[in-house]
Amino acid sequence: MFDISDMPIESLRSEERLMMPGQLLARGVCRHLASHGFSVIEEFTPERGKRLDVMALGPKGQLWVIECKSSRVDFTSDAKWPGYLEWGDRYFWAVDQDFPTELLPDDTGLILADGYDAEILRMGPETRLAGARRNAVIRRFAAHAARRLQALRDPEAGLEG
Amino acid sequence: MFDISDMPIESLRSEERLMMPGQLLARGVCRHLASHGFSVIEEFTPERGKRLDVMALGPKGQLWVIECKSSRVDFTSDAKWPGYLEWGDRYFWAVDQDFPTELLPDDTGLILADGYDAEILRMGPETRLAGARRNAVIRRFAAHAARRLQALRDPEAGLEG
Repeated sequence: MFDISDMPIESLRSEERLMMPGQLLARGVCRHLASHGFSVIEEFTPERGKRLDVMALGPKGQLWVIECKSSRVDFTSDAKWPGYLEWGDRYFWAVDQDFPTELLPDDTGLILADGYDAEILRMGPETRLAGARRNAVIRRFAAHAARRLQALRDPEAGLEG
Repeated sequence: MFDISDMPIESLRSEERLMMPGQLLARGVCRHLASHGFSVIEEFTPERGKRLDVMALGPKGQLWVIECKSSRVDFTSDAKWPGYLEWGDRYFWAVDQDFPTELLPDDTGLILADGYDAEILRMGPETRLAGARRNAVIRRFAAHAARRLQALRDPEAGLEG
């Protein structure tokens, strides 16, 4: 694993310099999950007021929620995360190698990440969504991904990005 | 409606000059459907050997398949389209204003399109997908859209575009 915060800033590509630490972790998580057949979206809003850092749809239809925390204060200042558990079958934290992981609840999953890749260290317990809810969440995932994709492919379509 | 084929080539943007006539129709169809709350993807491959020009997921979960035909020969040379009916609740052709619409089967939907917008002239009959199949198609739609989106957001992730 490579810690991007140790890199001299000049060696980061320009778009990486513009990414927040949490976004770099999300990118690494997404690359890792994609390599295992998951489809992923970042900054998914399942309902008003909730934004999930990474939502992953697995090859068997499983739904994983991953929150990326770049520092102690990033974690301790987040009071919303228990509300995210209900959106997936499994819940994970993604942190870098310097994160004080003893802060994290034992009964959640843990992913070690940097900007380039990630590794699942601990699977959290599985709480499977009921079928109707799973289908509703997958439909929102589909709509979100397709609208973002169209906004990138056709910027003049007038969709938000 | 504006017929893009009547435009002097110099007035097309560079990326439009690179688009095939059917792709321009698809863009107009997608803009129109998005303005009605649909999420759309182009060139969707629901299974090996089948490629749907536009797949649209409606706000109530409805699935529409739209094939774009830029000319008579584009339609008459397509023997695959009856195999596309089973992927959606409704099936439409999208054509420009010069297309000989009398060629098209009466019991299919019809959309008049150009590169910028579209208009639904005829709704085809509805043949609703069964619930399990609908959910399976929506899951593939979700995976396809998310993977394309990730490939655009993170070209170095190594996903195909």
